Amino acid sequence: MEYLLDQEVSTRLETFQKLLGRNDLDGALVLQNVGIYYYTGTAQASFLFIPGQGEPMLMVKKSFERARKESPHKNILQVNGKRDMAEMIKDSGLKPDAALGLEMDLVPASMYLWLRETFPGVLWKDISSLLRTQRMIKSAYETDQIRTACQIEHEVFTDLRTFIKEGMIELEVDARLASLARRKGHQGIVRMRGWNQEMTYAHVLSGDNGAVSSYLNSAHGGTGTNPAMPQGAGFRRIGRNEPILVDYSVGINGYIGDQSRAYVIGDLPEKLQKAHDCSRRILDRFSRLAKPGVLCSHLYQIAWETADEEGFSRFFMGHGNGQVGFIGHGIGLEIDELPVITPGFDKPLQEGMVLALEPKFVFPGEGAVGIEDDYVVTETGVERITLTEQDVLRVEE
Amino acid sequence: MEYLLDQEVSTRLETFQKLLGRNDLDGALVLQNVGIYYYTGTAQASFLFIPGQGEPMLMVKKSFERARKESPHKNILQVNGKRDMAEMIKDSGLKPDAALGLEMDLVPASMYLWLRETFPGVLWKDISSLLRTQRMIKSAYETDQIRTACQIEHEVFTDLRTFIKEGMIELEVDARLASLARRKGHQGIVRMRGWNQEMTYAHVLSGDNGAVSSYLNSAHGGTGTNPAMPQGAGFRRIGRNEPILVDYSVGINGYIGDQSRAYVIGDLPEKLQKAHDCSRRILDRFSRLAKPGVLCSHLYQIAWETADEEGFSRFFMGHGNGQVGFIGHGIGLEIDELPVITPGFDKPLQEGMVLALEPKFVFPGEGAVGIEDDYVVTETGVERITLTEQDVLRVEE
Repeated sequence: MEYLLDQEVSTRLETFQKLLGRNDLDGALVLQNVGIYYYTGTAQASFLFIPGQGEPMLMVKKSFERARKESPHKNILQVNGKRDMAEMIKDSGLKPDAALGLEMDLVPASMYLWLRETFPGVLWKDISSLLRTQRMIKSAYETDQIRTACQIEHEVFTDLRTFIKEGMIELEVDARLASLARRKGHQGIVRMRGWNQEMTYAHVLSGDNGAVSSYLNSAHGGTGTNPAMPQGAGFRRIGRNEPILVDYSVGINGYIGDQSRAYVIGDLPEKLQKAHDCSRRILDRFSRLAKPGVLCSHLYQIAWETADEEGFSRFFMGHGNGQVGFIGHGIGLEIDELPVITPGFDKPLQEGMVLALEPKFVFPGEGAVGIEDDYVVTETGVERITLTEQDVLRVEE
Repeated sequence: MEYLLDQEVSTRLETFQKLLGRNDLDGALVLQNVGIYYYTGTAQASFLFIPGQGEPMLMVKKSFERARKESPHKNILQVNGKRDMAEMIKDSGLKPDAALGLEMDLVPASMYLWLRETFPGVLWKDISSLLRTQRMIKSAYETDQIRTACQIEHEVFTDLRTFIKEGMIELEVDARLASLARRKGHQGIVRMRGWNQEMTYAHVLSGDNGAVSSYLNSAHGGTGTNPAMPQGAGFRRIGRNEPILVDYSVGINGYIGDQSRAYVIGDLPEKLQKAHDCSRRILDRFSRLAKPGVLCSHLYQIAWETADEEGFSRFFMGHGNGQVGFIGHGIGLEIDELPVITPGFDKPLQEGMVLALEPKFVFPGEGAVGIEDDYVVTETGVERITLTEQDVLRVEE
């Protein structure tokens, strides 16, 4: 088992405490698994109190032994539940009228109301954005984890060229993806932050299933196997001369790589091939233009214009009610991190960001094509870390 | 694609509206996927407003076409987001000082605060318990879905007897589970309601990994592959004469079956075999005693006494800080439904409940054994719906 380096944890904490100070906060209560892991190196069931200055308190419900082994923090305490936690924070000398941060996009209303009642003088402020903004910039260690995930993805994407056969149901391909990456060490769960969003490890969408929109905030959805879990692969049989879009995520040491490729048995219809080539052209332009200082909204604009020039804007990133307004997103411990490459996101790229860029085209009744690749923002540009060739991948027959 | 029957949806709605009336509520705003699916037959991205009387309003963000196809409701409207939703509810004639229900165990604090501001006179009440209590009693349709899941589980558990080999890493067995059930139609995600709880489809825990406790509210945890996702299978090689505990869930049409079995290559150490036999004895007693009217807390007591008589209470449902205080739980659209078979749950069994009962024993340094089976509560007793034999399953060599 590879533990998070002490240096990672202490650097993250130092940055966070500076951010607390700048935002007039006396501390923060971090309650969700991902946030706890990020600042401690353990994801055991805990409450994490980070004061504006000094040592954080990690109060662990289960497993205490494991949290002590995994985290370099010194101040690790055992608690039975939230009442213990509140007592400990009060005893630590918290001002009764302190201003404390909380991830209000995640913490349930009932927990929030309990905290308000238990700490009557405390002012609770939403720190979701502060915390996500810190996590937007990755360390070399973090980027390395995503590189490893991308390497595994490449192996699996390569394997599929010999595995897919005409007449197979989508679920068979999906099952293959599930099995291969898991054997190679995929953590089994892909975390997504957005409320009510859920992530399978893959979408395998053949022909018109690629154009079935869903509840997900993504260009494609797919039927899934049933209306209660309406996303991803279903029972559709894969045919000849139609696109098979595979969107696939792998998690290594918490960190997620996210890649898509289009396959075909035979040849794609000309329009779909043209659209796929347009996706490739968008990524080429992105690779040339993107560097620290360039606005995310500008990068979206360039992509949209490229699609529009070729007459594909109606099918860009979905169609009709299913169209989404972004072409890329940060990846890290969650698959929907910052930044977002979208018109409303007017912040510049910064060195250390890791992005998944996914210009895709969705044609009603015909299917989805396009590429999703992951990039690290370097000092002078971007480096592509996904390894698979960008053409439509022809299945070996 | 199999859609939810009109009759299911209308019966559920009728029951829910009666419950609203009895709890002095003028309506409820259902925001989470599972609740929306339960009352409408669609899980598309939506807001569901159910008034105390009359037609519910299903306000759909994405996909509108799909929601209309999947749900039998008449009043399905397209919205851009929550602002539209609030306007529509106000326009529907809501009293400004209405009392409305909300699932406060799930809805994020930020959404709750936004609702309070947007509906200034409305009193929001937590209906988590009301809604979970309704869902505790399953219809014949719901039970049938879980039966189908149990059938698939049985096939996969049977397959494992010929697949497991000495020296395999746990992840290989896990990958096999992932692949087999997915091909047979498993929906790919197992939903768990508890905040900060996450579910892989399986735990494959060999030898001492069966005794590694985790952040999960379960008797066993496992190392997982990394400290950021610390549950389930890891890189441990499976050995001879040690327990291999497999806990495995499959979702069909939203409904989850949940089964565990212990395997062995060779023979189990005597103490572990004895503990496994004790698990079987607990299930036998449960089968004879359980029927409508018997208190859940009483069933826990009987199980605990059986474990204690044989000297195993210290290892019952975990050990040390990792011990959990329940031996069973409802299953349905979520894997942690009501009732809970625990000392604090003093309610009686009722016809139509579906339970997973999982008396397990965890020995530090040695591993976990035990059985998890699913039962339907009938008019006069319980019916076991998991199909696999209850002995320790000997791997074929």
